[in-house]
Amino acid sequence: MSATTALLTDQYELTMLQAALARGTARRRSVFEVFARRLPEGRRYGVVAGTGRFLDAVETFRFDGETLRFLREAGIVDDATADWLADYRFTGDVWGYAEGDVFFPHSPLLVVEGTFAEAVLLETLALSVFNFDSAVASAASRMTAAAGARPCIEMGSRRAHEHAAVAAARAARIAGFDSTSNLEAGRTYGLPTRGTSAHSFTLLHDSEQDAFTAQISSLGKETTLLVDTYDVAAAVETGVRIAGTGLGAVRLDSGDLLSLATEVRRQLDELGATDTRIVVTSDLDEHAIAALASAPVDGYGVGTSLVTGSGAPTAGLVYKLVSREDDDGTMVSVEKRSTGKSSVGGRKYAWRRRDGRGVASAEILGLGRSPEADSDDRPLLVPLIRDGEVVGREPLDAARRRHVTARAELPPTALQLSRGEPAIPTYYEESR
Amino acid sequence: MSATTALLTDQYELTMLQAALARGTARRRSVFEVFARRLPEGRRYGVVAGTGRFLDAVETFRFDGETLRFLREAGIVDDATADWLADYRFTGDVWGYAEGDVFFPHSPLLVVEGTFAEAVLLETLALSVFNFDSAVASAASRMTAAAGARPCIEMGSRRAHEHAAVAAARAARIAGFDSTSNLEAGRTYGLPTRGTSAHSFTLLHDSEQDAFTAQISSLGKETTLLVDTYDVAAAVETGVRIAGTGLGAVRLDSGDLLSLATEVRRQLDELGATDTRIVVTSDLDEHAIAALASAPVDGYGVGTSLVTGSGAPTAGLVYKLVSREDDDGTMVSVEKRSTGKSSVGGRKYAWRRRDGRGVASAEILGLGRSPEADSDDRPLLVPLIRDGEVVGREPLDAARRRHVTARAELPPTALQLSRGEPAIPTYYEESR
Repeated sequence: MSATTALLTDQYELTMLQAALARGTARRRSVFEVFARRLPEGRRYGVVAGTGRFLDAVETFRFDGETLRFLREAGIVDDATADWLADYRFTGDVWGYAEGDVFFPHSPLLVVEGTFAEAVLLETLALSVFNFDSAVASAASRMTAAAGARPCIEMGSRRAHEHAAVAAARAARIAGFDSTSNLEAGRTYGLPTRGTSAHSFTLLHDSEQDAFTAQISSLGKETTLLVDTYDVAAAVETGVRIAGTGLGAVRLDSGDLLSLATEVRRQLDELGATDTRIVVTSDLDEHAIAALASAPVDGYGVGTSLVTGSGAPTAGLVYKLVSREDDDGTMVSVEKRSTGKSSVGGRKYAWRRRDGRGVASAEILGLGRSPEADSDDRPLLVPLIRDGEVVGREPLDAARRRHVTARAELPPTALQLSRGEPAIPTYYEESR
Repeated sequence: MSATTALLTDQYELTMLQAALARGTARRRSVFEVFARRLPEGRRYGVVAGTGRFLDAVETFRFDGETLRFLREAGIVDDATADWLADYRFTGDVWGYAEGDVFFPHSPLLVVEGTFAEAVLLETLALSVFNFDSAVASAASRMTAAAGARPCIEMGSRRAHEHAAVAAARAARIAGFDSTSNLEAGRTYGLPTRGTSAHSFTLLHDSEQDAFTAQISSLGKETTLLVDTYDVAAAVETGVRIAGTGLGAVRLDSGDLLSLATEVRRQLDELGATDTRIVVTSDLDEHAIAALASAPVDGYGVGTSLVTGSGAPTAGLVYKLVSREDDDGTMVSVEKRSTGKSSVGGRKYAWRRRDGRGVASAEILGLGRSPEADSDDRPLLVPLIRDGEVVGREPLDAARRRHVTARAELPPTALQLSRGEPAIPTYYEESR
């Protein structure tokens, strides 16, 4: 895999560049914005994720010799464009919603300002990163809200592209997941990792007792035993017999989790294993997690529905030119005008309106200038890149903490899992 | 990004390995199979994709010094396991459905045989690759079937993780897509790439006429003009005025595509641009493509719904131990037995039953031995890795051609887009 991110890009970014270079319009100062026209059906808020990954990707967005050779040989760009690309390095400014914050329809998640040439090239990469990561984080946030104080463990690697899986683990962590099964996410982002055993491990051994003995003697009695390969009650009994009442946890991966967890809890308590936890997995989503709220469950392992955005595998974000320079140097608001897919021209400034108790009541977008804000309101755009230099990098835990605060600030309806409207409305303060 | 694929893995593969190494069971000969318990709701067939990528990934699945250091320092494995991993290299055998072939519930897409230790480690990676690539190829096949002779162009990069996007372009190509917008897919897999311009390019310029002039003079009159930024009829008129009747194509990206395409075709013909093609984009899926069958459309650009599997973003494949060695060297069939998520133990051999006219009528799985087959029937498993050496690599076009044949062999109901049952039933020939 190449060390440059420059070809993780749609071809039309380069053909537009070529035509604009030839026409002399490529150097026009331009403002692009990333936003969603709507949230996925019924969702009440979205979660910004991908910022840190995007900043990394911009720094390696370079057209090296091999890349340029490919572009020339494939006839994708002409010599003049290839020469321009050889020196490419983003020198503009980027602002964005801070990672972990929430967003609503038309929230300007990312504002990219530079020449048309340098800013248009980042379109595909920005959208790939934010659309995937935000889709996962948005689903994850509903899951962690439903789980309350119980930890959620990300286990979806096998149901996502192998590199997307790493990004999914990161996005889930921002939105409150406790840990991940993905080792590359552990290495790359320092996430806590978890893992014990699968049915295959039990089936490998001559008996469940053999398997549990092997696991406990190697991983310690604090391990989590998978108890649903044959008969759950027999497995729980075997596990406690081997590990003692200090057994860390048992995992249920099939069947009716609500009744099974109740039975297993009773059995564990009767055996004296009152501190042994019960972890459930098996196609959980936010609704299944909520349905288990009254069950004696100590943790949720979530896979498929997390990494596929729980029905919304992409955040639906677009990257639109909203303002660009004229020949006389004036910035002009621009927008598509024909039927469908309309956008609002002009650079946006965004604040979250909050009442005196700190509860969010609206997303206020100022056109061309910052909206009128009270002291209770909160500005949403922070600087990420200034004159081409990344200034917005932060530890992942900062985004994770921010998400807790931003979600807590929403009105209580935001956390309802049923289909509904965005938790707060988005208003434009007209100023054009 | 690391050059090894070894950490694109769930932690439990390594903890199971550690426990099995300590117990002496890690060296038991084992057979794992990849299969789907069911197809996504209403789907009539699935398409195998990812094989070539999986073979590449297995070859770079190595635990280098940095990787081992991470695993030791994070306390994920003990010294004995780290030592074993340092020498890891898959030495077993892998068979699979040939890439581009179709599959049904319980089809053994991949059969991995080796020691438990070496085979269990590949679980997560195999599932990540096949689940994502097959989900995309399965959606793509429905789209190309609906499109008939009209070309489909893959444009979904912005709606998928940036590396998943490259795999998606490859999978789409196998299932009949003509080309892709993704440049890394062009470089890595030699796919034909396409791209012209976005609304931002028109908006950058002082007028649509300026924009079209810039595009045509740089990219040639064979280019595709995006004509729905302001007024479609005016844009078509402008485009033909500048490029002449030899204008390559116009693209419609919003509005009622059926009526718009009809109007634009009439206008182009009246202007004498009878060879100018009409390409449509805008949230197309297989149903929208089918609905445009009677419209004068010459090509479809498909994005979101393709890379998200058109409602089924993962193929639902699992990796299960079905057979393993006993202490006395006998292979024993194994299967999970508790409620839910059952599987059928025993190694599978798969044939596609075909009638005298070559039409597929059933998926026949032999347990432990090849099923009874007629001369009309077709064996489905091909060798991919033998004694650790990749033997199943092939050009992407071979998979693409195979898909055409395999899909054509299915009964006609297979190509219905409505929700239905799998196009052919799966039968086990009991022999245990």
